[in-house]
Amino acid sequence: MSVVSRRAGAAAAAFDAVGRFYFASRYSERRFAETISDFTFGNPQEMPLPGIGEAIRRHALPQNKNWFAYKTSETGPQTFVAGRLSAELGLRFAPEDIALTAGAFAAIALAFRLVVDAGDEIVFSEPGWFCYEPIAFAADAVPRKVALRAPAFDLDLAAIDAAITPRTRLVIVNTPHNPTGRIVQPDVLADLADLLTRASRRISRPIFLLSDEPYRRLRFDGRGFTSPATLYPHTLISYSYGKVLLAPGQRLGYLALSPLMPMPDRKALQDALFPAQMALGWTFPNAVMQYALPDLEDLSIDIAALTRRRDVLVGTLGAAGYEVLLPEGTFYLWGRWPAGADPERTWNALTDRDVFVMPGEILGAPGWFRICLTASDAMVERALPAFAEAVRP
Amino acid sequence: MSVVSRRAGAAAAAFDAVGRFYFASRYSERRFAETISDFTFGNPQEMPLPGIGEAIRRHALPQNKNWFAYKTSETGPQTFVAGRLSAELGLRFAPEDIALTAGAFAAIALAFRLVVDAGDEIVFSEPGWFCYEPIAFAADAVPRKVALRAPAFDLDLAAIDAAITPRTRLVIVNTPHNPTGRIVQPDVLADLADLLTRASRRISRPIFLLSDEPYRRLRFDGRGFTSPATLYPHTLISYSYGKVLLAPGQRLGYLALSPLMPMPDRKALQDALFPAQMALGWTFPNAVMQYALPDLEDLSIDIAALTRRRDVLVGTLGAAGYEVLLPEGTFYLWGRWPAGADPERTWNALTDRDVFVMPGEILGAPGWFRICLTASDAMVERALPAFAEAVRP
Repeated sequence: MSVVSRRAGAAAAAFDAVGRFYFASRYSERRFAETISDFTFGNPQEMPLPGIGEAIRRHALPQNKNWFAYKTSETGPQTFVAGRLSAELGLRFAPEDIALTAGAFAAIALAFRLVVDAGDEIVFSEPGWFCYEPIAFAADAVPRKVALRAPAFDLDLAAIDAAITPRTRLVIVNTPHNPTGRIVQPDVLADLADLLTRASRRISRPIFLLSDEPYRRLRFDGRGFTSPATLYPHTLISYSYGKVLLAPGQRLGYLALSPLMPMPDRKALQDALFPAQMALGWTFPNAVMQYALPDLEDLSIDIAALTRRRDVLVGTLGAAGYEVLLPEGTFYLWGRWPAGADPERTWNALTDRDVFVMPGEILGAPGWFRICLTASDAMVERALPAFAEAVRP
Repeated sequence: MSVVSRRAGAAAAAFDAVGRFYFASRYSERRFAETISDFTFGNPQEMPLPGIGEAIRRHALPQNKNWFAYKTSETGPQTFVAGRLSAELGLRFAPEDIALTAGAFAAIALAFRLVVDAGDEIVFSEPGWFCYEPIAFAADAVPRKVALRAPAFDLDLAAIDAAITPRTRLVIVNTPHNPTGRIVQPDVLADLADLLTRASRRISRPIFLLSDEPYRRLRFDGRGFTSPATLYPHTLISYSYGKVLLAPGQRLGYLALSPLMPMPDRKALQDALFPAQMALGWTFPNAVMQYALPDLEDLSIDIAALTRRRDVLVGTLGAAGYEVLLPEGTFYLWGRWPAGADPERTWNALTDRDVFVMPGEILGAPGWFRICLTASDAMVERALPAFAEAVRP
C-alpha cells in the first residue's frame, strides 16, 4: 500500500499525461533549447511586459509597519477589482464579492471547497484544461466529463443536462475556451442558465456555475464577451492576471460571486470565503502583489501580435491540409492533423524539426493538437516550413 | 440548507472564535489605533527588516523571458534550502525532499492531502495553534485533540498513544510551541518516535509525524533545537519564513521530507509533491519570492529585543500575581490570570487601558492568555502599569 493518499494519487494519475509530456518526453529534453519553436504551454517566449517588474519594485519598499503583515482579501484591491469588474461585465459587484487569490488555480480550488463536499460531482466539458480533473480529485470531488459538440466544439447542453445528478454541485464553463479558442455566445449561456435553473429545481438545491474566465480579455477581431455571471445568479467567476500579463509565475487572481445571487446565498458565501481560503492554505496573493494589482490591471500582452501569428499559422496549416478552428479568443490555436496523417508520427516529424505542439490527447481530444500563440514571431517563422514538411507524404 | 459546503462550514465554525476576536470584538474596534499595546497576533508592530524589500526589488526586474513564467519548486531554491536545512538539522536533504510553498499554511494543507484521505485522523495537542483544526476540516480530516500536561505543558505521550486509531495518518508536533514557547526536548522526541514506530506496526501502516517548525530559529537563552525529522523517519517538516522575518504577508515556506525515510516511501512522496501541490491550487511561492529566498535566508528579527521584552514582562507579570511560563522559543509569552481573577473581567480591564492580549480560550486553554513579543518596546512600556492595575482588587 502506498504511503501517498488516494486523493493525491488520483490527482497525480489524472495529471500523468501532462506530467510525462513536460518532464519526460522529447519536449522535456529540448524545452530549454534556444532554437526550438515552443508552442506547448502558455508560458512567455519573449521578455515580460516592463510594467510588471516596475510595479513590483514600486511596491516592494515598506511604507508602514504593516507592509508585510498577514494579508487576506484586502479592502483596497477588493474595492478596486469590484469597480473594474462591474464596469467590464455590466454588473454591480461589492468588494465583499471578491476573494483575492494567488492565481486562478487557487480560485478554482477554493470554489471546489466552498460549495462542493467530498463525493459531490462537478461537470465540465472535453476537450478542456487538463487541471480541472486533478484539482477535483484532490478535493475529493467526482468529475463528470461531457464532450463538446463537433465540428465547432460547441457546448452540448443536452449532454450537460443528462450529466446532472442529485450530487451535482458545480458546472464549469471556460470561456474564451482553452484549447478551442471559442467564446460561448449569449444565447447559449441563456439556454444554459435556464437548464441549470430547471436542474436546480429538480434536485432541490442550487447548482453553481463556475465561469472560468482567465482569457476574458484576450479576444480577436473585436469580438464581445458575455460572462455567465450576468445570466445565471449562482455563478462564481475565476480569473487570473497570469494570462493577460503572461506572468503566471506571479500568482494573482480572484474568485468573484455574481451580484445577481439571492442575498442569503450571496451573504453566506461572502462570509465563508475567508475561512475557506485560510483553511485551504492561506491562498491570498502576497502583500506586494496586492499593492501592485491596480498598476497591473490595464497591462496586456500584444493582442495584435497574437492575431498576426494566428493568421499566419492558420494560413500555412490550412494550405498544408490541417484542419484549424479560427480562435475567437485565448492565445491558442486548435488544430487537427490532416486526414490520414498518423498523430504520433506527425508530432514526431514536427519534433524532428524542433517544432513542439501539445498533443490533443492531453486535452481530451486525440487527433487534435494545440498551438500556443505566445511563441515569438521568430519561432512562428522558423516553424512554418516544418508544418508543411511534417505532413508531406 | 446552506449553499456553503459542510467542510467549508466546519472550517468556518472551527475558526469562529478567532474570527470574532479579529473582526468583531473590542480588539477589532481598536486594532488600528496608534496608542494601543497590541500583543495579540504574530504581526509586526515595527517597520520591517530593510533586507526584505531590498531583496524583492533586487529580483523584480526580469533577466530572461522565463522570469515570470510558471514556477513549481524550482531547482535553484530547492537545492539552496536542502543545503541549508542539512547543515541546520544535521541531516542530508536532497533537493527533491523540498516542496517550496507559499508559506507554512500551504505546507500544512499540502501535508494534510499528501498522506491523509477524507475521514482519516490527525492528532495534535492543545493548547495549540488555532488553524490546525480548520485546515483539517477543510481537508475532510478528523482532528483528534490531546491535552498538553500541566503545569509545564509537556507533550502527553500516553494520551497521544491512546488517541491513535487505525485511521490515524498524521501526528503534529509544533516545536518551539505556539503558544507556550516550550521546545520539545530530544529525549521526549525519542520516546515519541518509539511510540509512533510501535503504533505504526500496530495499525500496519506508517503514521506520519508533521513537525511544524516555523519558530525553529527563534530561541531564547542559547537553547538548542532538535527536529523530530532526525529521530523519526516518517517525518514531514513544515516551515515558514514569515516568523523569523516577521513578514507573513509575503508567503514563503516549505514542506520537507525527512531523508531518513525508507527510500520507497520517500520516492513515492517526492513524486507526489508536485501534482498534489498543483491540484491544491498551485501553492508554490511566486517567482520573485523564489529568486529572493537565498537573500532572505539569513535575515532575522532581533532575538535580543524579544528576550528583553520577555524578561521585562515576565518580571512585571510575576510581581502582579500572574503565573507565567518562561518561553524557551517562539515570540510568545504564555500566562495565566492571577488566582481568583475572572478571565473575562481582567481581559476587559486590560482592554480599558488599551492593552490587548489573546484570550487563552481561542487557543484551547481558558484561564490563560498569550502575549506576542513582536509588540514594540514602547507598547511594552505603556502596558506594564496596566497589567498591574487590571488585577488590583
